[in-house]
Amino acid sequence: MTKKRIAIDMDDVMAATGRKILKTYNHINSTAFTEQHFENKSYFEIFDEKNYHKIREEVFKPGFFRDVEVMADAIEVVKKLHEIYEVFIVSAATEFPNSLKDKMDWLEEHFPFISWRNVVLCGDKSIVAADYMIDDHEKNLKTFKGKTLMFSAIHNQMVNGYQRFKSWKEIEVFFDNE
Amino acid sequence: MTKKRIAIDMDDVMAATGRKILKTYNHINSTAFTEQHFENKSYFEIFDEKNYHKIREEVFKPGFFRDVEVMADAIEVVKKLHEIYEVFIVSAATEFPNSLKDKMDWLEEHFPFISWRNVVLCGDKSIVAADYMIDDHEKNLKTFKGKTLMFSAIHNQMVNGYQRFKSWKEIEVFFDNE
Repeated sequence: MTKKRIAIDMDDVMAATGRKILKTYNHINSTAFTEQHFENKSYFEIFDEKNYHKIREEVFKPGFFRDVEVMADAIEVVKKLHEIYEVFIVSAATEFPNSLKDKMDWLEEHFPFISWRNVVLCGDKSIVAADYMIDDHEKNLKTFKGKTLMFSAIHNQMVNGYQRFKSWKEIEVFFDNE
Repeated sequence: MTKKRIAIDMDDVMAATGRKILKTYNHINSTAFTEQHFENKSYFEIFDEKNYHKIREEVFKPGFFRDVEVMADAIEVVKKLHEIYEVFIVSAATEFPNSLKDKMDWLEEHFPFISWRNVVLCGDKSIVAADYMIDDHEKNLKTFKGKTLMFSAIHNQMVNGYQRFKSWKEIEVFFDNE
Protein backbone atom coordinates (compact mmCIF):
# COMPACT_ATOMS: atom_id res chain seq x y z
CA MET A 1 0.00 0.00 0.00
CA THR A 2 1.25 3.46 -0.83
CA LYS A 3 2.07 5.55 2.20
CA LYS A 4 0.01 8.70 2.63
CA ARG A 5 1.82 12.00 2.36
CA ILE A 6 2.04 14.78 4.90
CA ALA A 7 3.28 18.24 3.87
CA ILE A 8 4.76 20.00 6.90
CA ASP A 9 5.55 23.70 7.02
CA MET A 10 8.80 24.94 8.59
CA ASP A 11 8.43 28.50 9.93
CA ASP A 12 6.33 28.64 13.11
CA VAL A 13 5.52 24.93 12.77
CA MET A 14 8.85 23.07 12.93
CA ALA A 15 10.95 26.17 13.60
CA ALA A 16 10.29 28.97 16.09
CA THR A 17 10.92 31.65 13.47
CA GLY A 18 8.50 34.17 14.94
CA ARG A 19 10.40 33.99 18.21
CA LYS A 20 13.66 34.76 16.36
CA ILE A 21 12.06 37.70 14.50
CA LEU A 22 10.79 39.13 17.77
CA LYS A 23 14.16 38.69 19.49
CA THR A 24 15.97 40.29 16.54
CA TYR A 25 13.50 43.17 16.46
CA ASN A 26 13.90 43.84 20.17
CA HIS A 27 17.69 43.65 19.84
CA ILE A 28 17.87 46.11 16.93
CA ASN A 29 15.39 48.61 18.36
CA SER A 30 16.03 48.22 22.08
CA THR A 31 12.38 47.36 22.57
CA ALA A 32 10.86 44.70 24.80
CA PHE A 33 7.92 43.39 22.80
CA THR A 34 6.59 40.01 23.81
CA GLU A 35 4.42 37.60 21.86
CA GLN A 36 1.34 39.05 23.57
CA HIS A 37 1.75 42.31 21.65
CA PHE A 38 1.17 40.46 18.41
CA GLU A 39 -2.05 38.62 19.04
CA ASN A 40 -3.90 38.09 15.76
CA LYS A 41 -1.34 40.13 13.87
CA SER A 42 1.63 39.27 11.77
CA TYR A 43 4.88 40.61 13.16
CA PHE A 44 5.07 43.00 10.24
CA GLU A 45 1.77 44.64 11.14
CA ILE A 46 2.81 45.93 14.54
CA PHE A 47 6.36 47.05 13.81
CA ASP A 48 6.51 50.69 12.71
CA GLU A 49 7.44 51.39 9.11
CA LYS A 50 11.08 52.30 9.63
CA ASN A 51 11.70 49.35 11.90
CA TYR A 52 9.71 47.09 9.61
CA HIS A 53 12.31 47.72 6.89
CA LYS A 54 15.14 47.02 9.30
CA ILE A 55 13.73 43.66 10.32
CA ARG A 56 12.90 42.78 6.69
CA GLU A 57 16.57 43.35 5.86
CA GLU A 58 17.61 41.02 8.68
CA VAL A 59 15.33 38.25 7.44
CA PHE A 60 16.91 38.51 3.97
CA LYS A 61 20.47 38.10 5.30
CA PRO A 62 22.35 34.78 5.08
CA GLY A 63 22.25 32.98 8.39
CA PHE A 64 18.95 34.38 9.70
CA PHE A 65 17.11 31.05 9.38
CA ARG A 66 20.11 28.90 10.30
CA ASP A 67 19.94 29.12 14.11
CA VAL A 68 16.20 29.27 14.70
CA GLU A 69 15.09 27.11 17.64
CA VAL A 70 13.21 23.89 16.99
CA MET A 71 9.57 23.90 18.16
CA ALA A 72 8.87 21.78 21.22
CA ASP A 73 8.40 18.05 20.47
CA ALA A 74 8.71 18.62 16.70
CA ILE A 75 11.68 16.26 16.26
CA GLU A 76 10.10 13.34 18.11
CA VAL A 77 6.68 13.64 16.45
CA VAL A 78 7.97 14.28 12.91
CA LYS A 79 10.28 11.27 13.31
CA LYS A 80 7.36 9.09 14.36
CA LEU A 81 5.22 10.34 11.46
CA HIS A 82 8.14 9.75 9.07
CA GLU A 83 8.07 6.05 9.98
CA ILE A 84 4.43 5.66 8.95
CA TYR A 85 3.86 8.37 6.34
CA GLU A 86 5.78 9.99 3.52
CA VAL A 87 6.76 13.23 5.18
CA PHE A 88 7.53 16.22 2.94
CA ILE A 89 8.83 19.48 4.36
CA VAL A 90 7.24 22.33 2.38
CA SER A 91 8.49 25.84 3.08
CA ALA A 92 7.45 29.07 1.36
CA ALA A 93 11.05 30.25 1.16
CA THR A 94 11.83 31.45 -2.37
CA GLU A 95 11.02 35.05 -1.37
CA PHE A 96 14.20 34.85 0.73
CA PRO A 97 16.92 33.42 -1.54
CA ASN A 98 19.52 33.47 1.24
CA SER A 99 17.27 31.35 3.44
CA LEU A 100 17.32 28.38 1.07
CA LYS A 101 20.66 26.83 1.98
CA ASP A 102 20.16 27.81 5.63
CA LYS A 103 16.92 25.86 5.64
CA MET A 104 18.56 22.77 4.10
CA ASP A 105 21.38 22.95 6.68
CA TRP A 106 18.90 23.47 9.51
CA LEU A 107 16.93 20.40 8.44
CA GLU A 108 20.13 18.36 8.09
CA GLU A 109 21.11 19.35 11.64
CA HIS A 110 17.80 18.82 13.43
CA PHE A 111 15.91 16.39 11.15
CA PRO A 112 18.70 14.30 9.55
CA PHE A 113 16.22 11.49 8.82
CA ILE A 114 14.49 13.74 6.24
CA SER A 115 16.08 13.30 2.82
CA TRP A 116 16.67 16.21 0.43
CA ARG A 117 14.24 14.30 -1.82
CA ASN A 118 11.44 15.21 0.60
CA VAL A 119 12.06 18.94 0.84
CA VAL A 120 10.11 21.50 -1.18
CA LEU A 121 11.16 25.17 -1.12
CA CYS A 122 8.55 27.19 -2.95
CA GLY A 123 6.50 30.38 -3.03
CA ASP A 124 2.86 29.50 -3.65
CA LYS A 125 1.99 26.21 -1.92
CA SER A 126 -1.10 25.59 -4.04
CA ILE A 127 1.13 23.57 -6.40
CA VAL A 128 1.74 20.95 -3.67
CA ALA A 129 -0.35 17.78 -3.65
CA ALA A 130 -0.44 15.59 -0.54
CA ASP A 131 -2.93 13.92 1.80
CA TYR A 132 -2.37 16.16 4.82
CA MET A 133 -0.98 19.66 5.26
CA ILE A 134 0.23 21.06 8.58
CA ASP A 135 0.63 24.85 8.31
CA ASP A 136 0.06 28.03 10.29
CA HIS A 137 -1.11 30.15 7.35
CA GLU A 138 -4.67 30.11 6.05
CA LYS A 139 -3.46 31.13 2.56
CA ASN A 140 -1.59 27.81 2.35
CA LEU A 141 -4.35 25.66 3.82
CA LYS A 142 -7.27 27.11 1.87
CA THR A 143 -6.18 25.84 -1.57
CA PHE A 144 -5.09 22.43 -0.26
CA LYS A 145 -7.22 19.49 -1.40
CA GLY A 146 -6.30 17.02 1.37
CA LYS A 147 -6.92 17.24 5.12
CA THR A 148 -5.76 20.47 6.72
CA LEU A 149 -4.22 20.91 10.17
CA MET A 150 -3.76 24.49 11.33
CA PHE A 151 -0.79 24.89 13.63
CA SER A 152 -1.81 27.52 16.10
CA ALA A 153 0.18 30.75 16.02
CA ILE A 154 -0.20 34.24 17.46
CA HIS A 155 -1.15 35.57 14.02
CA ASN A 156 -3.88 33.01 13.22
CA GLN A 157 -5.98 33.15 16.39
CA MET A 158 -8.95 34.74 14.58
CA VAL A 159 -9.01 32.24 11.72
CA ASN A 160 -11.88 29.76 11.86
CA GLY A 161 -12.82 26.75 9.79
CA TYR A 162 -9.71 24.64 10.36
CA GLN A 163 -8.92 21.98 12.89
CA ARG A 164 -6.47 23.73 15.17
CA PHE A 165 -3.44 22.22 16.92
CA LYS A 166 -1.64 24.02 19.71
CA SER A 167 1.37 21.70 19.90
CA TRP A 168 3.14 18.78 18.25
CA LYS A 169 1.71 16.59 21.03
CA GLU A 170 -1.80 17.39 19.76
CA ILE A 171 -0.70 16.56 16.21
CA GLU A 172 0.66 13.24 17.44
CA VAL A 173 -2.74 12.40 18.96
CA PHE A 174 -4.51 13.33 15.70
CA PHE A 175 -2.38 10.92 13.66
CA ASP A 176 -2.63 8.20 16.33
CA ASN A 177 -6.36 8.25 15.58
CA GLU A 178 -6.09 8.34 11.77
CA MET B 1 -11.61 31.03 -15.78
CA THR B 2 -8.65 29.67 -13.90
CA LYS B 3 -5.47 29.59 -15.91
CA LYS B 4 -3.97 26.18 -16.50
CA ARG B 5 -0.62 25.47 -14.91
CA ILE B 6 2.61 24.44 -16.58
CA ALA B 7 5.50 23.04 -14.50
CA ILE B 8 8.77 23.69 -16.32
CA ASP B 9 12.08 22.05 -15.42
CA MET B 10 15.31 24.09 -15.34
CA ASP B 11 18.35 21.88 -16.01
CA ASP B 12 18.58 20.80 -19.65
CA VAL B 13 15.19 22.38 -20.38
CA MET B 14 15.55 26.11 -19.62
CA ALA B 15 19.27 25.96 -18.80
CA ALA B 16 22.03 24.19 -20.76
CA THR B 17 23.40 22.53 -17.62
CA GLY B 18 24.64 19.40 -19.40
CA ARG B 19 26.74 21.62 -21.66
CA LYS B 20 28.32 23.27 -18.59
CA ILE B 21 29.02 19.88 -16.96
CA LEU B 22 30.73 18.67 -20.12
CA LYS B 23 32.78 21.86 -20.47
CA THR B 24 33.81 21.69 -16.81
CA TYR B 25 34.73 18.01 -17.12
CA ASN B 26 36.87 18.64 -20.18
CA HIS B 27 38.53 21.59 -18.48
CA ILE B 28 39.40 19.65 -15.31
CA ASN B 29 40.58 16.51 -17.08
CA SER B 30 42.05 17.97 -20.26
CA THR B 31 39.68 15.77 -22.28
CA ALA B 32 37.72 16.67 -25.38
CA PHE B 33 34.44 14.83 -24.96
CA THR B 34 31.55 16.08 -27.05
CA GLU B 35 27.82 15.52 -26.57
CA GLN B 36 28.01 12.61 -29.01
CA HIS B 37 29.98 10.54 -26.48
CA PHE B 38 27.03 10.62 -24.13
CA GLU B 39 24.18 9.41 -26.28
CA ASN B 40 21.57 7.68 -24.12
CA LYS B 41 23.72 8.01 -21.05
CA SER B 42 23.80 10.39 -18.17
CA TYR B 43 27.03 12.32 -17.92
CA PHE B 44 27.85 10.45 -14.76
CA GLU B 45 27.76 7.07 -16.51
CA ILE B 46 30.60 7.76 -18.93
CA PHE B 47 33.00 9.65 -16.70
CA ASP B 48 35.44 7.33 -14.93
CA GLU B 49 35.09 6.96 -11.18
CA LYS B 50 37.88 9.28 -10.12
CA ASN B 51 36.80 12.00 -12.50
CA TYR B 52 33.16 11.42 -11.61
CA HIS B 53 33.94 12.48 -8.05
CA LYS B 54 35.79 15.55 -9.29
CA ILE B 55 32.86 16.72 -11.39
CA ARG B 56 30.37 15.93 -8.61
CA GLU B 57 32.39 18.22 -6.34
CA GLU B 58 32.22 20.99 -8.93
CA VAL B 59 28.43 20.70 -9.23
CA PHE B 60 28.12 21.08 -5.44
CA LYS B 61 30.14 24.31 -5.36
CA PRO B 62 28.49 27.74 -5.07
CA GLY B 63 28.34 29.40 -8.47
CA PHE B 64 28.19 26.28 -10.63
CA PHE B 65 24.57 26.85 -11.69
CA ARG B 66 24.82 30.64 -11.78
CA ASP B 67 26.36 31.11 -15.24
CA VAL B 68 24.78 28.27 -17.19
CA GLU B 69 23.68 29.32 -20.69
CA VAL B 70 19.99 29.73 -21.44
CA MET B 71 18.58 27.17 -23.89
CA ALA B 72 17.75 28.53 -27.33
CA ASP B 73 14.37 30.30 -27.56
CA ALA B 74 13.53 29.46 -23.92
CA ILE B 75 13.08 33.09 -22.84
CA GLU B 76 10.73 34.05 -25.69
CA VAL B 77 8.57 30.92 -25.45
CA VAL B 78 8.36 30.83 -21.63
CA LYS B 79 7.41 34.52 -21.70
CA LYS B 80 4.63 33.83 -24.19
CA LEU B 81 3.36 30.85 -22.15
CA HIS B 82 3.51 32.99 -18.97
CA GLU B 83 0.99 35.40 -20.55
CA ILE B 84 -1.60 32.64 -21.09
CA TYR B 85 -0.80 30.04 -18.44
CA GLU B 86 0.33 29.96 -14.83
CA VAL B 87 3.98 29.05 -15.33
CA PHE B 88 5.79 27.38 -12.44
CA ILE B 89 9.50 26.64 -12.57
CA VAL B 90 10.10 23.29 -10.86
CA SER B 91 13.70 22.23 -10.32
CA ALA B 92 14.98 19.12 -8.54
CA ALA B 93 17.66 21.11 -6.74
CA THR B 94 17.64 20.29 -3.03
CA GLU B 95 20.36 17.64 -3.54
CA PHE B 96 22.65 20.63 -4.25
CA PRO B 97 22.10 23.14 -1.43
CA ASN B 98 24.54 25.64 -2.94
CA SER B 99 22.59 25.64 -6.21
CA LEU B 100 19.44 27.03 -4.62
CA LYS B 101 20.33 30.72 -4.46
CA ASP B 102 22.22 30.45 -7.77
CA LYS B 103 19.05 29.17 -9.39
CA MET B 104 16.95 32.02 -7.97
CA ASP B 105 19.54 34.57 -9.17
CA TRP B 106 19.74 32.91 -12.60
CA LEU B 107 15.96 33.07 -12.97
CA GLU B 108 15.92 36.70 -11.83
CA GLU B 109 18.54 37.54 -14.47
CA HIS B 110 17.11 35.67 -17.45
CA PHE B 111 13.40 35.27 -16.59
CA PRO B 112 12.61 38.37 -14.48
CA PHE B 113 8.91 38.06 -15.32
CA ILE B 114 8.76 34.85 -13.22
CA SER B 115 7.91 35.68 -9.60
CA TRP B 116 9.54 33.88 -6.65
CA ARG B 117 5.96 32.76 -5.93
CA ASN B 118 6.13 30.54 -9.00
CA VAL B 119 9.41 28.77 -8.27
CA VAL B 120 9.59 25.30 -6.70
CA LEU B 121 12.95 23.86 -5.64
CA CYS B 122 12.47 20.28 -4.59
CA GLY B 123 13.81 16.74 -4.70
CA ASP B 124 11.04 14.36 -5.70
CA LYS B 125 8.72 16.06 -8.22
CA SER B 126 5.83 13.65 -7.61
CA ILE B 127 4.53 16.15 -5.04
CA VAL B 128 3.89 18.75 -7.75
CA ALA B 129 0.39 19.10 -9.20
CA ALA B 130 -0.13 20.99 -12.47
CA ASP B 131 -1.80 20.55 -15.84
CA TYR B 132 1.37 20.20 -17.93
CA MET B 133 4.93 19.20 -17.11
CA ILE B 134 7.91 19.91 -19.38
CA ASP B 135 10.91 17.84 -18.26
CA ASP B 136 13.81 15.82 -19.64
CA HIS B 137 13.71 13.05 -17.01
CA GLU B 138 11.33 10.11 -17.21
CA LYS B 139 11.41 9.74 -13.40
CA ASN B 140 9.75 13.16 -13.14
CA LEU B 141 7.24 12.65 -15.95
CA LYS B 142 6.09 9.15 -15.04
CA THR B 143 4.36 10.09 -11.76
CA PHE B 144 2.82 13.28 -13.18
CA LYS B 145 -0.98 13.24 -13.53
CA GLY B 146 -1.33 15.98 -16.17
CA LYS B 147 -0.05 16.11 -19.75
CA THR B 148 3.65 15.32 -20.11
CA LEU B 149 6.09 16.90 -22.55
CA MET B 150 9.52 15.28 -22.73
CA PHE B 151 12.24 17.75 -23.58
CA SER B 152 14.70 15.83 -25.71
CA ALA B 153 18.17 15.37 -24.23
CA ILE B 154 21.19 13.22 -24.97
CA HIS B 155 20.39 11.00 -21.97
CA ASN B 156 16.71 10.31 -22.80
CA GLN B 157 16.96 9.23 -26.45
CA MET B 158 15.97 5.63 -25.63
CA VAL B 159 12.92 6.58 -23.57
CA ASN B 160 9.59 5.92 -25.28
CA GLY B 161 6.01 6.65 -24.37
CA TYR B 162 6.20 10.43 -24.09
CA GLN B 163 5.54 13.17 -26.59
CA ARG B 164 9.02 14.41 -27.37
CA PHE B 165 10.09 17.98 -28.09
CA LYS B 166 13.47 18.81 -29.57
CA SER B 167 13.31 22.56 -29.01
CA TRP B 168 11.37 25.40 -27.43
CA LYS B 169 10.01 26.19 -30.90
CA GLU B 170 8.34 22.76 -30.95
CA ILE B 171 6.89 23.43 -27.49
CA GLU B 172 5.53 26.75 -28.72
CA VAL B 173 3.72 24.95 -31.57
CA PHE B 174 2.27 22.38 -29.13
CA PHE B 175 0.75 25.11 -26.94
CA ASP B 176 -0.45 27.10 -29.95
CA ASN B 177 -2.63 24.06 -30.69
CA GLU B 178 -3.89 23.49 -27.12
